[in-house]
Amino acid sequence: MQEVRVSSEKLTEAVVLKLKKAGLRELDATIVADVLVHADLRGVSSHGVLRTEHYVKRITEGGINPEPEFTIKATGPVTAIFDGDNGMGHVIAKEAMNYTIKLAEKSGVGMVGVMNSSHCGALSYFVQQAAEMNLIGLAMTHTDKIVVPFGGAKPYFGTNPIAFGFPSKNKPLILDMATSNVAWGKILHKREAGTATIPSDWGVDEKGKPTTDPNAVTALLPFAGPKGYGMSMVVDIFSGILTASAFGPHVTKMYGDYSEKRQLGHFLCAINPSYFTTIESFLCNIDQMVNEIHAINPAEGFTKVMVPGEPEYLREEEYLKEGIPLTDSLYEYLIEDKQTSI
Amino acid sequence: MQEVRVSSEKLTEAVVLKLKKAGLRELDATIVADVLVHADLRGVSSHGVLRTEHYVKRITEGGINPEPEFTIKATGPVTAIFDGDNGMGHVIAKEAMNYTIKLAEKSGVGMVGVMNSSHCGALSYFVQQAAEMNLIGLAMTHTDKIVVPFGGAKPYFGTNPIAFGFPSKNKPLILDMATSNVAWGKILHKREAGTATIPSDWGVDEKGKPTTDPNAVTALLPFAGPKGYGMSMVVDIFSGILTASAFGPHVTKMYGDYSEKRQLGHFLCAINPSYFTTIESFLCNIDQMVNEIHAINPAEGFTKVMVPGEPEYLREEEYLKEGIPLTDSLYEYLIEDKQTSI
Repeated sequence: MQEVRVSSEKLTEAVVLKLKKAGLRELDATIVADVLVHADLRGVSSHGVLRTEHYVKRITEGGINPEPEFTIKATGPVTAIFDGDNGMGHVIAKEAMNYTIKLAEKSGVGMVGVMNSSHCGALSYFVQQAAEMNLIGLAMTHTDKIVVPFGGAKPYFGTNPIAFGFPSKNKPLILDMATSNVAWGKILHKREAGTATIPSDWGVDEKGKPTTDPNAVTALLPFAGPKGYGMSMVVDIFSGILTASAFGPHVTKMYGDYSEKRQLGHFLCAINPSYFTTIESFLCNIDQMVNEIHAINPAEGFTKVMVPGEPEYLREEEYLKEGIPLTDSLYEYLIEDKQTSI
Repeated sequence: MQEVRVSSEKLTEAVVLKLKKAGLRELDATIVADVLVHADLRGVSSHGVLRTEHYVKRITEGGINPEPEFTIKATGPVTAIFDGDNGMGHVIAKEAMNYTIKLAEKSGVGMVGVMNSSHCGALSYFVQQAAEMNLIGLAMTHTDKIVVPFGGAKPYFGTNPIAFGFPSKNKPLILDMATSNVAWGKILHKREAGTATIPSDWGVDEKGKPTTDPNAVTALLPFAGPKGYGMSMVVDIFSGILTASAFGPHVTKMYGDYSEKRQLGHFLCAINPSYFTTIESFLCNIDQMVNEIHAINPAEGFTKVMVPGEPEYLREEEYLKEGIPLTDSLYEYLIEDKQTSI
């Protein structure tokens, strides 16, 4: 599979064009492209422009409302319900986080339950929005079922990611993680690469038994057994049950009926550190912590101890200079509507 | 090592006596005993009455203020700083959670940063307080350093636990977990039992290399590598940096200078589901989720798929009937001031 390198600007343009052609409004298409390219720049290509084709198909077939009207219902001094009218999840989550940030700036905390949304891309984007405003950001979303509960033979929850963003005097600290041990994409990658064995804590076979054969995997295992299972339930309760959306196996499939609205839920929170301590002391202490962690001797096999989000920033620096690597086929898809190469 | 079974009532009485003798006020001693016996009943003996001797020593040597005056500073509609005046952490966290609950009942959310506290026992107790009031409870606390960061050879964070409590129509769902893979006590237990090998993801030797020799372990590994490491940082930022308390290696040691006040921080949050959905629908959906999970076929080696907190409830039922098992030496310590056996 050959690789092409494309600048983030050109990539954004191409994605905007695709999404506009599918029916999205210009501004919405720009936001979606920004969230997707953000993920690609961080090396999280599973949540990047690779998904464009999927979104285009879903918009075209009616599973996503290209012209949603958002409604926000404030329910208390720091809480609200944000109805995304089944638009693009990226736009919904970004707008909802903007509202969450306003609540936190005014009253110390913002907590917003998002309903009637769709796949919103990498959560890192939204917690970074908060962190860049000197707030702590928290985001969760449920996904459709693929992970077995601890001790169970069949999947119940999705990979249900959770993300935190913390402001600092330098780059924000960003932790964005699935509650499964590995992503489904990692299994697919091993299959494609013809790898014979994978670690036994990645997935289970159709009988629910941990397997080392990538071709036998039918569902994923949660990270750290009961801990990841517990966290996947936390994410499902916050983003599904609390937002009056679906939960567990009732969450509409991403790769199912494309004409169906997914009605996903997200949970967003922003916390203003100045309601607990001074922002100056908060930021100084975060920086001291980061510096102290950087000074720790690395373990065998590591060259440096990094903080959450740091490997992704290094990737971003590289890709901003060298361009974002795309497979040939993805590149061809993205430029097919343009007159020239990108 | 012989085992004695003691009823929870008798055990509570004995602990109250010990703590009162050390200088605690009657009500405070009762709260501490209640939190400790709660842990023992759930089978979490590491956080149970086993710690009484430690607390007594710390009170006696001046490291805990037996007669603290708590102060609460409200900083916004849902936020506050709770100063524990270096009293017993159990009493501080319980009182602070009561205040957090009041905020959530009045305004949908409560978020309280606790400072000048000490070891508070099992976090499950405090999130259960919230869940029993039909609120979602969240609690975090930092602890002194024992866990290496992902990729690091030396410890930086503590086992930094995080707990969630969710109300249901039956028992609340309680997830209470350390961000290390296993507790330090588990290493000690393997040493005492003379076990030759332990899994290589439990701990590292003095060079920071994962080891299977329980006697070589000098620090613990976070759960699931970067994920547990990231979560331990989240807990340290919320309970340490956000509360203007110490963080990372600057957290005062539990088993260090007993005359030193530990000045620990905790972070408590309560969320009122009725600010997002109806409480009836929230509770019904939680129950449906639990029932559906119970109906999943168990994996090989399991007899039932359980939800977070369920194994501990089963233990509690058993211990309420049969009594709580104590080692002979612990039993002897607890009854030494009494005229008769308990």
